[in-house]
Amino acid sequence: MSKERTEISSLGEFGLIDHLTKNIELQNASSVLGVGDDAAVIDHFGKQTVITTDLLLEGVHFDLVYTPLKHLGYKSVIVNLSDVYAMNAIPTQVIMSIGISNRFSVEAIDEFYEGVYAACNKYGVDLVGGDTTSSQKGLVISVTAIGEVTPDTYVKRSTAKKGDLLCVSGDLGAAYVGLLFLEREKKIYMESPGVQPDLEGESYVIGRLLKPEARKDIVEFFAKEEIQPTAMIDISDGLSSEILHICKESALGCVLYEEKIPIAEEMKKAAFKFEIDPTACALSGGEDYELLFTIAQSDYEKLVLNEQISVVGYMTEPDQGAHIITKGGGKHAITAQGWNHLKQNNS
Amino acid sequence: MSKERTEISSLGEFGLIDHLTKNIELQNASSVLGVGDDAAVIDHFGKQTVITTDLLLEGVHFDLVYTPLKHLGYKSVIVNLSDVYAMNAIPTQVIMSIGISNRFSVEAIDEFYEGVYAACNKYGVDLVGGDTTSSQKGLVISVTAIGEVTPDTYVKRSTAKKGDLLCVSGDLGAAYVGLLFLEREKKIYMESPGVQPDLEGESYVIGRLLKPEARKDIVEFFAKEEIQPTAMIDISDGLSSEILHICKESALGCVLYEEKIPIAEEMKKAAFKFEIDPTACALSGGEDYELLFTIAQSDYEKLVLNEQISVVGYMTEPDQGAHIITKGGGKHAITAQGWNHLKQNNS
Repeated sequence: MSKERTEISSLGEFGLIDHLTKNIELQNASSVLGVGDDAAVIDHFGKQTVITTDLLLEGVHFDLVYTPLKHLGYKSVIVNLSDVYAMNAIPTQVIMSIGISNRFSVEAIDEFYEGVYAACNKYGVDLVGGDTTSSQKGLVISVTAIGEVTPDTYVKRSTAKKGDLLCVSGDLGAAYVGLLFLEREKKIYMESPGVQPDLEGESYVIGRLLKPEARKDIVEFFAKEEIQPTAMIDISDGLSSEILHICKESALGCVLYEEKIPIAEEMKKAAFKFEIDPTACALSGGEDYELLFTIAQSDYEKLVLNEQISVVGYMTEPDQGAHIITKGGGKHAITAQGWNHLKQNNS
Repeated sequence: MSKERTEISSLGEFGLIDHLTKNIELQNASSVLGVGDDAAVIDHFGKQTVITTDLLLEGVHFDLVYTPLKHLGYKSVIVNLSDVYAMNAIPTQVIMSIGISNRFSVEAIDEFYEGVYAACNKYGVDLVGGDTTSSQKGLVISVTAIGEVTPDTYVKRSTAKKGDLLCVSGDLGAAYVGLLFLEREKKIYMESPGVQPDLEGESYVIGRLLKPEARKDIVEFFAKEEIQPTAMIDISDGLSSEILHICKESALGCVLYEEKIPIAEEMKKAAFKFEIDPTACALSGGEDYELLFTIAQSDYEKLVLNEQISVVGYMTEPDQGAHIITKGGGKHAITAQGWNHLKQNNS
């Protein structure tokens, strides 16, 4: 934690904006005009513009007790870039608005923006605008990400075809288990503030929650291998929920194989400490920011060697519904339960 | 007020989004893909994309005691469109995120969106995305507006030239006086809930506050008359503050004539009821959403007959500073004081 504390009121709104944006150097030719006017100007030079937004509220989407502000700034950008990648597009700009109360110092806001700029630099996007305002109480974050895509190569959720292979990137469920650890330690801390948190060995699952990455590499791989996914969505609410979105919007059913769901060893061990099923975490945990997509069977050879991609099932006729085949051979309907359901079962 | 009350929880997040967006018909060819995927897709076909955002928080930016939700939805869109027009661009899409607590019913949110759609229809823009989330307490609104402009005809704040004429659209200061009335009636209501509000005859100033419009007509007039403003900004913080932005960012001074500042008769009468100076309201009131712009003197003939435009001064060398010449002939430095200062003087 920083030792100095500069009050935001000592800078004023315009002073704070200057302070936060003075070192921006625009990296993209498409960023024609950045921060400092009524609006930003973008030129995608014949490409189509992709745009998405997220609203993140303290107490609903994040808990500052265990979320460092720098990580929060980083993650706020990442979750939006993930939506741009899920369209098969490349993010080029972000716009960041924050509502802050006077309990935050200029140093605290600087930490938050350190994370924002770290994410922008890593993913090659420019911060080109935003709004900074006071809030009465909690921290409010609104991020809009803008990207570009070659005309009509963007990928929707609604265009999967029967027989297409269902694929996911990376591994699933770890962020949820990371949350369980942090919630447990928060509870202990609240009851006995002297106790040091015991998170030894859990850096993988906690890192997946606090500092997620967006799958730029997968979208670049598609371009390199000339793979055009038939449908795509990012995994923010859990694999089940996202699979059901693709099924519903593509008017199809699917078969998902439990044994094919990618799960990290670290996550499996961590889940067992809470006596919960790793598969349930993958299905209903969420906040993975991996990509779920479908490809034509003829593209299978192009991605089979990519260790970051797992084929987990295939699309079927709609009247067959969406099912999971368990490791034991059982067949169950996929339902979207989300975190709340899991929490209820495990609290 | 609606008599029914449907709990938001009865629809769920996805149900609420479906409910709010089911009747959208995209109006613009540039709206390639709207609500319902990871991101929206826009194609401005060779034009540049303009983008701006605003974060509006209950208790900071609006007071639901005297702000009907429909008006709030309308105004939330308008304030962003105004920023797009201030770039000399035409708005084409908006993205709307809201954070709502369970004190709002589905019917209340419907009212809000009625206003959102009314503004979209009036200005010919499409709602193409957003985020809907729960909030712990207050209403949170984040709006992003997207527009298009012929390459390199956008107008910045920083490009005014010495000798350029300083112009404003419409009339100024009324929204601030409208606020004074509503704050007064709120205070009376809080003390004696039985008393009916006395806003007779003040519909002009109150309308300017609660249902502002954006100056689409002025930007269309520029295009028709082939006027390229040399600098432009919209008036959200008061004429003084915006003039100082143009002076600072264009590195110029200016002379402003008090007698040229456009003030509506209704506003003047209303200001006198509060024993405040109408000019002070115009200079420091804000929320007018009029356009402040500079033009080359050679363009004067093109706009002199437009009754919606007033020439209020001219730009000078920077070392002459920014001054106002009062009706009495006095010369004073222009300072940015904003609403808070006015409020302090009049409470």
